Amino acid sequence: MRISELSERTGVSTASIKYYTREGLLPAGERTGYNSTAYGESHVARLRLIRALIDTGGLTVAAAGRVIAAIDDPGIELDHVFGIAQQSVPRDVTPPSAASVETVRALMRERGWATVDTNPGIALAASVLDDLAVTHTDLDAVLSRYAEAVDRIAEADLDAVAARGDRDQMAETVVVGIVLGDVLLAGLRRIAQESHTHRRYRGGVVPGRAPETPETEDPT
Amino acid sequence: MRISELSERTGVSTASIKYYTREGLLPAGERTGYNSTAYGESHVARLRLIRALIDTGGLTVAAAGRVIAAIDDPGIELDHVFGIAQQSVPRDVTPPSAASVETVRALMRERGWATVDTNPGIALAASVLDDLAVTHTDLDAVLSRYAEAVDRIAEADLDAVAARGDRDQMAETVVVGIVLGDVLLAGLRRIAQESHTHRRYRGGVVPGRAPETPETEDPT
Repeated sequence: MRISELSERTGVSTASIKYYTREGLLPAGERTGYNSTAYGESHVARLRLIRALIDTGGLTVAAAGRVIAAIDDPGIELDHVFGIAQQSVPRDVTPPSAASVETVRALMRERGWATVDTNPGIALAASVLDDLAVTHTDLDAVLSRYAEAVDRIAEADLDAVAARGDRDQMAETVVVGIVLGDVLLAGLRRIAQESHTHRRYRGGVVPGRAPETPETEDPT
Repeated sequence: MRISELSERTGVSTASIKYYTREGLLPAGERTGYNSTAYGESHVARLRLIRALIDTGGLTVAAAGRVIAAIDDPGIELDHVFGIAQQSVPRDVTPPSAASVETVRALMRERGWATVDTNPGIALAASVLDDLAVTHTDLDAVLSRYAEAVDRIAEADLDAVAARGDRDQMAETVVVGIVLGDVLLAGLRRIAQESHTHRRYRGGVVPGRAPETPETEDPT
């Protein structure tokens, strides 16, 4: 297909398509003549991946380029792709206190979680604990319940990767899962929080909606 | 204490302290004389809250102002504070497909989650599903495992709120929990993912670290 059709199919402007090609995120199309280039389905799929990482995941173009390079390089092993993707998600972290870092490390021992010392999650979780200490009275209980839930989530993440066929597909699933999984969790958590709030403080009644009437036995 | 001491205690510049006061995020100090103002412990605590929301949570000053106003207004009920805090977290959402919105609604029915139609999590989760469909083969399985984990997380969130004493403290815990809980989850998930990857693909060996030797019986 021509670049105009590729743009129409994906909703990405031709200027952006050319920009992603120059930056190495998108392979060049096949030159079919003077001033004309042909694109295929692989370009459609790749553009969807690029937009997911940038638009939904909030990655910069440079960060998206790094993780896509990792997907495309068959010499990079899968667990290294994990590391590259984890580092690519933008997070400003306030340096955490030593006490909170130790709390996170104690939690890791408790759950049998072993990582390299530079895993970005350690500083991130610890800096949040510093902030939560001000407003949460029993932080240890919250933390261990979060950790238990996260263990199941990570297991599901790895199963989704293992379900793919070859190394390239697996690498793609790793990257997308890491970047978008956070956003999916944030979305589901908004829904569950509201639902639990109605249950706990309003007897399950949703504001602006009639309470559900219990089914009554048919009198006949 | 004077503004200089408040600045030193909290690491917030005097210019920012004055700015937050002008914007209504921080109550004014007590005037103790011409050109001198006294601040107390409540100002220290409030500044920590403001910085947690803005620095760790990524809220704009305006959004932080809205949730702080909700905390400070005793006429706003707790579940409404939840809604205000949920809306305050910045998220650019690509409009989701109708099919993915229906997938989220089916999941909500399955889990007994009831919310208002405008809950921001619905569009957020659905737009992620559109992106994940490209790289995940068994999305329903992943989604239902995420949802089960999130149910536990939301329960822990509500318990943390209920553990606080009065309405103002509860409202503060609601806001901080919603804003920072996403970040805590993201941090813990990075740790758990790396750990599960080592377990699955490297027999539990962390790169750059000697494998743990099994404890041997004392030969004596």
